Amino acid sequence: MSLLIRGGTVVNADSMFRADVFCEGETVTRIATSIDPGEVNADRVIDASGRYVFPGFIDPHVHIYLPFMGTYAKDTYETASKAAVVGGTTTLIEMICPGRDDEPAEAFALWAGKAEGLSACDYTFHMGVTRYDDAAEQQLRQIVKEGITSFKVFLAYKGALGVTDDELYAACRLAKGLGVVVTAHCENADLVAALQAKLLSEGKTGPEWHEPSRPPRVEAEGVHHFCTFLELTGASGYIVHTSCRDAIEAALPFRARGVDVDLETVIPYLTLDSSYAERLDFEGAKYVMSPPIRAAEHQRYLWDALRAGHVATVATDHAPFDFVGQKDMGKPPAGDFTKIPNGIPSVEHRVTLLWTKATPAHGSGVFDLHRFVEVAGTHAAKRFGLFPRKGVVQLGADADLVVWDDTYRGPITAADHYMDTDYDGFEGFEITGRPALVTVRGEVVAEDGKFTGTLGRGRLLKR
Amino acid sequence: MSLLIRGGTVVNADSMFRADVFCEGETVTRIATSIDPGEVNADRVIDASGRYVFPGFIDPHVHIYLPFMGTYAKDTYETASKAAVVGGTTTLIEMICPGRDDEPAEAFALWAGKAEGLSACDYTFHMGVTRYDDAAEQQLRQIVKEGITSFKVFLAYKGALGVTDDELYAACRLAKGLGVVVTAHCENADLVAALQAKLLSEGKTGPEWHEPSRPPRVEAEGVHHFCTFLELTGASGYIVHTSCRDAIEAALPFRARGVDVDLETVIPYLTLDSSYAERLDFEGAKYVMSPPIRAAEHQRYLWDALRAGHVATVATDHAPFDFVGQKDMGKPPAGDFTKIPNGIPSVEHRVTLLWTKATPAHGSGVFDLHRFVEVAGTHAAKRFGLFPRKGVVQLGADADLVVWDDTYRGPITAADHYMDTDYDGFEGFEITGRPALVTVRGEVVAEDGKFTGTLGRGRLLKR
Amino acid sequence: MSLLIRGGTVVNADSMFRADVFCEGETVTRIATSIDPGEVNADRVIDASGRYVFPGFIDPHVHIYLPFMGTYAKDTYETASKAAVVGGTTTLIEMICPGRDDEPAEAFALWAGKAEGLSACDYTFHMGVTRYDDAAEQQLRQIVKEGITSFKVFLAYKGALGVTDDELYAACRLAKGLGVVVTAHCENADLVAALQAKLLSEGKTGPEWHEPSRPPRVEAEGVHHFCTFLELTGASGYIVHTSCRDAIEAALPFRARGVDVDLETVIPYLTLDSSYAERLDFEGAKYVMSPPIRAAEHQRYLWDALRAGHVATVATDHAPFDFVGQKDMGKPPAGDFTKIPNGIPSVEHRVTLLWTKATPAHGSGVFDLHRFVEVAGTHAAKRFGLFPRKGVVQLGADADLVVWDDTYRGPITAADHYMDTDYDGFEGFEITGRPALVTVRGEVVAEDGKFTGTLGRGRLLKR
Amino acid sequence: MSLLIRGGTVVNADSMFRADVFCEGETVTRIATSIDPGEVNADRVIDASGRYVFPGFIDPHVHIYLPFMGTYAKDTYETASKAAVVGGTTTLIEMICPGRDDEPAEAFALWAGKAEGLSACDYTFHMGVTRYDDAAEQQLRQIVKEGITSFKVFLAYKGALGVTDDELYAACRLAKGLGVVVTAHCENADLVAALQAKLLSEGKTGPEWHEPSRPPRVEAEGVHHFCTFLELTGASGYIVHTSCRDAIEAALPFRARGVDVDLETVIPYLTLDSSYAERLDFEGAKYVMSPPIRAAEHQRYLWDALRAGHVATVATDHAPFDFVGQKDMGKPPAGDFTKIPNGIPSVEHRVTLLWTKATPAHGSGVFDLHRFVEVAGTHAAKRFGLFPRKGVVQLGADADLVVWDDTYRGPITAADHYMDTDYDGFEGFEITGRPALVTVRGEVVAEDGKFTGTLGRGRLLKR
Repeated sequence: MSLLIRGGTVVNADSMFRADVFCEGETVTRIATSIDPGEVNADRVIDASGRYVFPGFIDPHVHIYLPFMGTYAKDTYETASKAAVVGGTTTLIEMICPGRDDEPAEAFALWAGKAEGLSACDYTFHMGVTRYDDAAEQQLRQIVKEGITSFKVFLAYKGALGVTDDELYAACRLAKGLGVVVTAHCENADLVAALQAKLLSEGKTGPEWHEPSRPPRVEAEGVHHFCTFLELTGASGYIVHTSCRDAIEAALPFRARGVDVDLETVIPYLTLDSSYAERLDFEGAKYVMSPPIRAAEHQRYLWDALRAGHVATVATDHAPFDFVGQKDMGKPPAGDFTKIPNGIPSVEHRVTLLWTKATPAHGSGVFDLHRFVEVAGTHAAKRFGLFPRKGVVQLGADADLVVWDDTYRGPITAADHYMDTDYDGFEGFEITGRPALVTVRGEVVAEDGKFTGTLGRGRLLKR
Repeated sequence: MSLLIRGGTVVNADSMFRADVFCEGETVTRIATSIDPGEVNADRVIDASGRYVFPGFIDPHVHIYLPFMGTYAKDTYETASKAAVVGGTTTLIEMICPGRDDEPAEAFALWAGKAEGLSACDYTFHMGVTRYDDAAEQQLRQIVKEGITSFKVFLAYKGALGVTDDELYAACRLAKGLGVVVTAHCENADLVAALQAKLLSEGKTGPEWHEPSRPPRVEAEGVHHFCTFLELTGASGYIVHTSCRDAIEAALPFRARGVDVDLETVIPYLTLDSSYAERLDFEGAKYVMSPPIRAAEHQRYLWDALRAGHVATVATDHAPFDFVGQKDMGKPPAGDFTKIPNGIPSVEHRVTLLWTKATPAHGSGVFDLHRFVEVAGTHAAKRFGLFPRKGVVQLGADADLVVWDDTYRGPITAADHYMDTDYDGFEGFEITGRPALVTVRGEVVAEDGKFTGTLGRGRLLKR
Repeated sequence: MSLLIRGGTVVNADSMFRADVFCEGETVTRIATSIDPGEVNADRVIDASGRYVFPGFIDPHVHIYLPFMGTYAKDTYETASKAAVVGGTTTLIEMICPGRDDEPAEAFALWAGKAEGLSACDYTFHMGVTRYDDAAEQQLRQIVKEGITSFKVFLAYKGALGVTDDELYAACRLAKGLGVVVTAHCENADLVAALQAKLLSEGKTGPEWHEPSRPPRVEAEGVHHFCTFLELTGASGYIVHTSCRDAIEAALPFRARGVDVDLETVIPYLTLDSSYAERLDFEGAKYVMSPPIRAAEHQRYLWDALRAGHVATVATDHAPFDFVGQKDMGKPPAGDFTKIPNGIPSVEHRVTLLWTKATPAHGSGVFDLHRFVEVAGTHAAKRFGLFPRKGVVQLGADADLVVWDDTYRGPITAADHYMDTDYDGFEGFEITGRPALVTVRGEVVAEDGKFTGTLGRGRLLKR
Repeated sequence: MSLLIRGGTVVNADSMFRADVFCEGETVTRIATSIDPGEVNADRVIDASGRYVFPGFIDPHVHIYLPFMGTYAKDTYETASKAAVVGGTTTLIEMICPGRDDEPAEAFALWAGKAEGLSACDYTFHMGVTRYDDAAEQQLRQIVKEGITSFKVFLAYKGALGVTDDELYAACRLAKGLGVVVTAHCENADLVAALQAKLLSEGKTGPEWHEPSRPPRVEAEGVHHFCTFLELTGASGYIVHTSCRDAIEAALPFRARGVDVDLETVIPYLTLDSSYAERLDFEGAKYVMSPPIRAAEHQRYLWDALRAGHVATVATDHAPFDFVGQKDMGKPPAGDFTKIPNGIPSVEHRVTLLWTKATPAHGSGVFDLHRFVEVAGTHAAKRFGLFPRKGVVQLGADADLVVWDDTYRGPITAADHYMDTDYDGFEGFEITGRPALVTVRGEVVAEDGKFTGTLGRGRLLKR
């Protein structure tokens, strides 16, 4: 099987050139000014004239299998990976989230089993460290050996997923020793619990009270706390879903002192604001995630921080729950915002929304095409050990390619999305570009918004 | 004329792959896993097995023709461009520094004339704005039209090169209107003058008093001042030769608020410290430049800032003066550090010193090969409108290539450097790698430390 | 002449006690639990039961004689000193503002002459340094010898009152040498001029454009600039009329590094916001002062900064101009906000408004009675060399006393104010306390809002 | 009993005047320019000509009864209160430190019992909250009612004295509700434990490793953590024994946002540095306290912060242990710095050392006499509800007075100190002033370095 993409403009994080790209099997084998289809005997030739050819994008923060808050996230690898590739994302990094009593090795096997044979695109995991003792450590060492070279810790969700400070220290030390990156959810668990209790006791039960129950200072505290542990252990870190100015400002002095920590934000924070969670008739529940969607002033700050390089990546924290039957677990009359499953399905729209909002001549012009590629894929590939196999169009890289149609205009709607949820948080948002064609290791998996690939072809990436 | 570089590992800011690179005429026309020399009929074939192939590096801040402090900088384009290419730098951006009474157009013609027909590598200019009135503005507009899309302003050197605040504002507004970047030397001129007078009046006349005459707070003040003008005009800026923690910390809040400003540091700040300027027998004069070489603690901070992305580029501020006959203008008995011509010749050593100090397994391991390429060339190319013609190895780019020999070990010495100065500020420094071969638009201009190119082939780059 | 104030609660910045206070001649000579009027043979006995007895308050920043913007401030010492004492202010520090071509000694004589024999309360001056050369320096040294131990410099009003950077440095050095405090108006003159020109060229001519013509960053730049000069000279400084968060945040790192600089705010910033300058029918002109009244969010920050001690004093920058005949110099049809004389008359209301807004049980409870006394008088007395003669009720201090009526309620109105302006910027503001009785060196000068003193009894205070 | 102090200069935090001070019984009843001894029939007349008369100083942070680290602090109220008054401190605030399993009410009774009938000066307590549950809350409410209006929490000493985050939140909420101040020891317990284990495992066992086991970032983390809890609950806070720049810089942004939090430092941090803990022959153990004595650069920062008002008080954290028999619990051969009881005895020297180092013409001239009084007593009195009964020389205040001899010169030595320890951490330090006479509620308790008072006369102060 071979594929020749002709006439496009290849755009990487730091290069841009007109070229024909030839993929043999799973790999990019030739990039040249002009490649004769006959000479290479291409099985399929794609005309990419006037179009950008991007490296397949990477979402470094998704949940697919997720027992959480008394229910399960709605997607499977079948639905989620279809949604991903249709939207231009060709690699997923999922969080493994064992309970405190679960064994890491079993959790890893469980999560890996949920993906194996079902995914349309490649994937890997951040290994959740939700308990730390000798047994856990042994298993973690083995899991790292098997190619899972990043951990995930939660400062939030105490008693469920959260770690204690001595566990956090031990996890950072182990990570430092193994050269592994520690990703972290940074909110102080006890403050959240206390503020939730206070609000509920005051009769403040609707989804609009979710944000005040975990205000920016709670997140800033988590960031300061985690960065201190990184600084004192020398470990490398990555802060997931940074939502607000306070959190970023808490991290900057650590970065300036040489602490190796990256910040991630997610597409909902860049496109929504806290007014969504205030929508009437419990509609606000669709917009409940943690950390919460913030007031609009934070959104502007996040864009600036992305441009300035203070924030490194744009992920999703994709965590899909239905509005009917799941989000409504917190609905009146017995209303309780703490019972609303947290998450906004977005794996399908990350790249198109980012394009729409960020790129010059296609939105606010926040940054150029190179930075777009970097924050949507390349940086994650480099940080998480997938580079240069992923994240760049170059000789020898996996043939994960996105041919971009920047003439497309259309609304987002749950009516035709691939994610397995009964609503879409971005319903009606107009996007101004989308993938015309997407490949995963040489196979065309999506064209013009339709999935055309093969489930089960996606592989677990050893890093 | 064609050139085939075989078997190397191409390293760009965001890609890395093993490939053969074929250059036809002045351009990279093929990059492929394997290219048959016979098939392409290569005029010369170079074996780069086991070697990195980098894009030619860019020094965005040099002085070559420079009437300054009563003398002239020592190099010409003949000597400076030879030194540059031998060290791996294939593009120079020189500062045009007219006096306040000079006409911009004449200055541009004068500076361009000094380079034309003499340079071994390509070059462009930052156009110094040292006076602003209607006549100057008209000429500046014309110069921008001719492809010189960056300005240089001096907050220091009042009365000579420095601008007043209303001129600064006007220059930023013009730059904003034309989409031009304003580069700036940020030291408060009056504070420097006052501190110089104070020190001299106290009998503090030696080169070791140069640093105290322009302490970090003077530079931080310049940075804060300039960034305010950028913020209020919306112009894009670039702060040259940032030397210290105070200056960087002054800029960070502006960047976080979305002001588009980059910071440059220069190789002397990364490798020398203020103790050099304290050397006996007037040896310290060799290390007098402005802003001054700082105390060692600042050096550590600069490396961290480079890694964290707070500092974007590593240039030289190459300004070569002989020790005998020039630097000694400030020598005792009539000693006066303010009479020592400012500058440390370094265009030849920038890339090799940076490699030695920064890259993993070759030094302190401050950052990886991609960041090395980015700060030594790619970022400057992007910021100053040379990208992707320069700064990246890709199809269609200029064939400016550096084949790197990472096995080389040897000392720096004035005995064999190409720069036209009678001393070398890095005398005896051991480097741990250097270019094995350098090309400029397809011509081999240097091999193993020897210049092999053609003077006069370098061109003025229109941006 | 003697006066016995019985039964009040004396409140100083750091003491509070019930006592009788006896004043003989101009001085407090006894403070005791109980003083028998007969024994001391008091000429007048005042019942202060249930009332606070404060030290007379100090306004460290007023203009009375002021040729400015083509006109003159409206008050004389007759009107202004009456207004001051009725409102509880018993010491005024006026700015002497010579033109650049004026001689300091003549200016001092001129300003002193305007006060002599006319003032109802004591006063001193900040000596404006609006030019610096040898002649000026000699005169300044003499003026300091005569007891005027503070300078005033303007970074704004270039060409009129503003100093150049070398003059600023020289003024700070002289101040350091003489132990004199440098007070400073911190706005960058050229930025203001440029922004004014830009707005006017865009047809933005109304008073609502005054604030955008000198935005917070312009003031922050001035503060950073001035603090740098203090840090490098070691001089002590005092920044007048700080209006916004940006300005305070610019000063804090200098204070933390040990730079001796105090911040002043003024009562309009604490009680008004930028919406006042947007009032229709040119009413906004009444609220034009510099720096401008800011958006409401800054007001909250100022109160917090006052409580936290980041801001040290509350003054007025009293600069009175009539609405008709003066403020209307900038009125349409030939509208031009830069022609509106800058200033809001407020010397009469500073203390009562501060009381109303700040004190517990009498407003928002921002801080306690001690802090109220400190920011309204004691700190200024200490900073400007008047302490402990002024600023505290103690043995031997001048008998400047304010017996406070905290039961008073009433609106502010131009109909009965003592200031010589045809409007009052606080018209209709309700105050919740005022002086029942005010003394200046033993003379009762005001009672229940009425002036009862003697003009001309006020003296120039030598410091 | 009555006492007349004649001819001194009374110095309060915000007043200074020459006066005779008459004390009847326990109270200051007259302050007058001249009081005739015969007229008032004084029992004792003291000549204070040429001397300052200060309000008795307050040490807001001492330990006397302290079961800690397997032993007991060495002093009793007999020895500690003698030492305090001889040094000019007339009020002590002791920490009640119950174990987690102890009942607060019992602890309060136990600690109160250790003082009752034994103290030479007045005292009160900060009530340690070392566990929070319903039973504890009920008892805490009762203890507050009895006049103990401040809490103490430990973020350090996990499992022993430390609280969990939910307990911390509950304590802050309770404090907010009751109007009580929360004092806090801010070091992250788990980080300390982890770093201790790491150092010990590396064979780093001597006292010089105590500081690296709790570096500045550990303290900064504690400060940031605690301030976040204050900000989210609205409680008022007070951070004890701030030792370093990092900790202060962590608190400043909270203060600027309006969080009501004061910082305390202690006299060892202002006068010693980390080199003391590196002394040979286990001498370093004498200087082990927590947070640790820091590198000298932090000391300079602390002085600046005191002057700038960022740090509000100077206490001691007096925690006395003998060198022989207690400090040597961590001595080689079985050396272990974590076994060295933490603390440096200093209650006797706080005021004299502060005077020596801080006051103009008597040391470095860091600040004036008023600030000296404020940081050594007045501010603590105001913050902890003792003002104006304590902390000021005024009518009606307790007759706690210090007549100061600024001509005294002499060394500190364990040979004649009153503290019950076998060494003095300030051995050989020369002081340049000391109390000539000290009174507690009208009784002369010390003269010229000798205790002359009555044990058991000191009372528990209800606040």
